[in-house]
Amino acid sequence: MAVYTQLGAEELGSLIGEFDVGTLRSAKGIAEGVSNSNWLIETTGAQGHEQHFILTVYEERTEARDLPFFLGLMDHLADHGCPVPATIHDRAGQAFREVRGKAVALIEFLPGVSVSAPTAGQARAVGGALARIHLAGADFTLERANGMGPAAWQDLLGGCGHDGLVSIDPALAAIVERELPAVIAAWPEDLPRAVIHADLFPDNVLMLGDEVSGLIDFYFACTDLAAYDVAVTHAAWCFDATGSRFDPVLSAALLEGYQAVRPLSGAEQAALPLLARGAALRFLATRAYDWLNTPDGALVTRKDPMAFARRLEFYSANPAVFA
Amino acid sequence: MAVYTQLGAEELGSLIGEFDVGTLRSAKGIAEGVSNSNWLIETTGAQGHEQHFILTVYEERTEARDLPFFLGLMDHLADHGCPVPATIHDRAGQAFREVRGKAVALIEFLPGVSVSAPTAGQARAVGGALARIHLAGADFTLERANGMGPAAWQDLLGGCGHDGLVSIDPALAAIVERELPAVIAAWPEDLPRAVIHADLFPDNVLMLGDEVSGLIDFYFACTDLAAYDVAVTHAAWCFDATGSRFDPVLSAALLEGYQAVRPLSGAEQAALPLLARGAALRFLATRAYDWLNTPDGALVTRKDPMAFARRLEFYSANPAVFA
Repeated sequence: MAVYTQLGAEELGSLIGEFDVGTLRSAKGIAEGVSNSNWLIETTGAQGHEQHFILTVYEERTEARDLPFFLGLMDHLADHGCPVPATIHDRAGQAFREVRGKAVALIEFLPGVSVSAPTAGQARAVGGALARIHLAGADFTLERANGMGPAAWQDLLGGCGHDGLVSIDPALAAIVERELPAVIAAWPEDLPRAVIHADLFPDNVLMLGDEVSGLIDFYFACTDLAAYDVAVTHAAWCFDATGSRFDPVLSAALLEGYQAVRPLSGAEQAALPLLARGAALRFLATRAYDWLNTPDGALVTRKDPMAFARRLEFYSANPAVFA
Repeated sequence: MAVYTQLGAEELGSLIGEFDVGTLRSAKGIAEGVSNSNWLIETTGAQGHEQHFILTVYEERTEARDLPFFLGLMDHLADHGCPVPATIHDRAGQAFREVRGKAVALIEFLPGVSVSAPTAGQARAVGGALARIHLAGADFTLERANGMGPAAWQDLLGGCGHDGLVSIDPALAAIVERELPAVIAAWPEDLPRAVIHADLFPDNVLMLGDEVSGLIDFYFACTDLAAYDVAVTHAAWCFDATGSRFDPVLSAALLEGYQAVRPLSGAEQAALPLLARGAALRFLATRAYDWLNTPDGALVTRKDPMAFARRLEFYSANPAVFA
């Protein structure tokens, strides 16, 4: 959302000099990334060709600790032909460096734009791209637990409290108190696991027409149920922004696109309605917590928790959308 | 500082289609511009060449009213060989269009980075570039009054009030009450006029090594005393960020660079100490007003007014720096 770390031209120039990418020609701070700072970098290479990169400064310690997983995964997926930006390693071979005590990485720039009103063709392409990263991640050797799994929903929603939830919306506490224990009690553990993106909203997909040109922002990626990632992506793509209107055409296209590459097992298919309720609870939990804990006038825009409460109710009432 | 207007990919794509610049390939919101929203746009032209542009959405009505002046000036200066971005006119020949009731312009992308610790060579180049826009603007036919001239300083500092100034710093009210009337009483009216940039801080200059590759952000440009623009640029480049340390080497280089292209008349030279006090008052006035009128936690970072109070005191005590 912002550029938190101010790096001067001199500092950027000497940082770029640590990579074999030519000379710095331009650096624009870009308004992407919730907890890190990003620049769009232009360099001139040996043949005078312009090259573009994203430079990311990781503002949070926890992110930096997981960088070998995140950046290693991006390199692994890019190597396996997925539309994922590879990291540029420095002259010493490192995927990230340290500047002013913060980790920084130089990342391949991929073209494409994030759509706000996807077409069926785009939803199908996203389903296919998601399935391909699940398959390509199979021989990635690192693992990372999902820090935003059921235990985290319970902590975050518990932290909101009954009164906090009621203060967001009079109906919210009852929804959470009915759904949260039911979903957690039934949560499956024996479905196929994969490296999952876990946050594949339209913002994190770059498209050129109906083609996926980039999957970005792997900073929630982890090792978890592949079908849960399908459910997250379904919740992210198949509703309007308020969560009030479900789009059956996008839903069918997304699921078809996924299964054309990686068919879901019977058990995965049967679990999707529950996994989708879990996906809705996951975003409801962070949004509700942030809603109650973001000071008025803070730099971060609060996102409406009810947009995911509505999805949760929809999935609970309509398990047949996955049939 | 931020992207205020959210434009979806579909809207951006159809907007870009109104210009003869090829197909939209990428759009990144960039963290530049205080009162407008900016995107770095990549398109693919007819020969498959990548092209880059800045797309600006003007958020304020006053800015939009002055766009024929601002954009016409940029085109005029670019046509005259100054390193200023030209506007891209749409297929109907217009320099700006309207989207969602706001004016938008597509502007040439210029390479270069903004330096934070200028060298003497860079200060000399900036002086030369400033002189060149003063000369090139001579046959520009539009005029615009300086909305940030002495009357505005008086309004803004008057709006702060004695107690407001004291609340910023115990010494500030006395400085303003001594300097403001003295500078206004002696303000010259008969020096050579030009189209001036009026805000040529390092942020608004793009450099490649010691060359000026771009002068940007002409949204304070107006018709006023050429030597006042020299004074503004001097105040902007020849001190550290806190205004505590004056750099005589940068000062000499900036003035030499300017005079090598456009020698100052004796009257301009003699007026520089007073004009520099005015330049310091101008930025002190807006910073002090914003300091007192920006809510805590607002999206805008408040800038320390005292950084310009210190310059004001320096110029008042050291008129000989311009001798």
